[in-house]
Amino acid sequence: MTSLRGVTAIPGLFLSFEGGDGAGKTTQLARLAQWLEQEHGREVVRTREPGGTTLGRTLRELVLHGEDVDARTEALLYATDRAHHVASVIRPALERGAVVITDRYLDSSLAYQAGGRELGMSELRDLQMWAVRGLLPRMTFLLDLDPALLAQRLTGEPDRLERAGAEFHRRTRGAFLDLAGAEPERWRVLDAAAPIEDISARIRAEVEPLLAPVAEGDAS
Amino acid sequence: MTSLRGVTAIPGLFLSFEGGDGAGKTTQLARLAQWLEQEHGREVVRTREPGGTTLGRTLRELVLHGEDVDARTEALLYATDRAHHVASVIRPALERGAVVITDRYLDSSLAYQAGGRELGMSELRDLQMWAVRGLLPRMTFLLDLDPALLAQRLTGEPDRLERAGAEFHRRTRGAFLDLAGAEPERWRVLDAAAPIEDISARIRAEVEPLLAPVAEGDAS
Repeated sequence: MTSLRGVTAIPGLFLSFEGGDGAGKTTQLARLAQWLEQEHGREVVRTREPGGTTLGRTLRELVLHGEDVDARTEALLYATDRAHHVASVIRPALERGAVVITDRYLDSSLAYQAGGRELGMSELRDLQMWAVRGLLPRMTFLLDLDPALLAQRLTGEPDRLERAGAEFHRRTRGAFLDLAGAEPERWRVLDAAAPIEDISARIRAEVEPLLAPVAEGDAS
Repeated sequence: MTSLRGVTAIPGLFLSFEGGDGAGKTTQLARLAQWLEQEHGREVVRTREPGGTTLGRTLRELVLHGEDVDARTEALLYATDRAHHVASVIRPALERGAVVITDRYLDSSLAYQAGGRELGMSELRDLQMWAVRGLLPRMTFLLDLDPALLAQRLTGEPDRLERAGAEFHRRTRGAFLDLAGAEPERWRVLDAAAPIEDISARIRAEVEPLLAPVAEGDAS
């Protein structure tokens, strides 16, 4: 079993999936987790934001179905959920060497709020980075899909974010692509309209080198 | 009816009470509110933190009686409550010219968390000031009481903060006094062991000039 070390020198491997609802994050996350467990014998912790803890599920209900809150309060609600999620779930799992895969992380807050609403990117990033004490994923997969295709995939009752409309989703997609472009070493942008198995294969190919022991003399 | 303008150029008058539980904040706040309404005909909005909104009451339950959270998550929970409280209760009331009196405000977070726990004062202050978009009270009354006397006054079930112990309360008292010393133009430190009527009279004497029209040529 290999202990990989990220920017914060914690054992384990931290991965995140980002993209609009309906882009296939849940499916791909499940397929990756199964492969890591069955083919590599790794402990995998699958989690999500918001709602990865009891506190987080309460906060998620407040945000999605509760009283109207302004953009600043909403940013703080997500930061609170995330701080608790990192402190109580993600860091302990990474410290024992697990692979942690989260369905959404702080990039979602940056894309949805700075991309879709009125708060500035730098203040939002400062807030979210303070909340997580600087912990970023080793790799982030963006399942990128045209908002028109994405809307067709959605089922069930629309929540508040979904009702916010097509223009909102277009801006959010642009914000995700901007985030990915600014940090290419962390992000992998995947065409979510591709066949499921093709996407899974691409993800496995990206993750496999992060699991392998680093050979002596291999400085690449 | 006079419109006073604070540092943020909002009509109305914003006052806060700080101090340990049992120091008499609720009593003095009620007496001041009654005097403002009956003697000065002012609209008074009495409120509190945490718990001044529906969202805030949910968050208050989470902090006081919910699962254990780390200091960072706790700071964010209070900041979230405060952001929503300011945006949905305090600012609208000030904008229509009311006197808003709150039982605790951001100074409580600074005193309890920076004074009593592990987070740094400057990062906590930045977080809380971002949450409230810089809105500070025109005047803050600290009901200062020796923690030993304060403990005797408390009744009912101890909550998590109360159980944190005497050393915690001593540090918190020191932190409140430090905050007051650093901003003497805003703070008024009152001996909470004095007779109730004496304290009320002192508070009224401090608030009255803030209600009076500023006479021409009076630059004091």
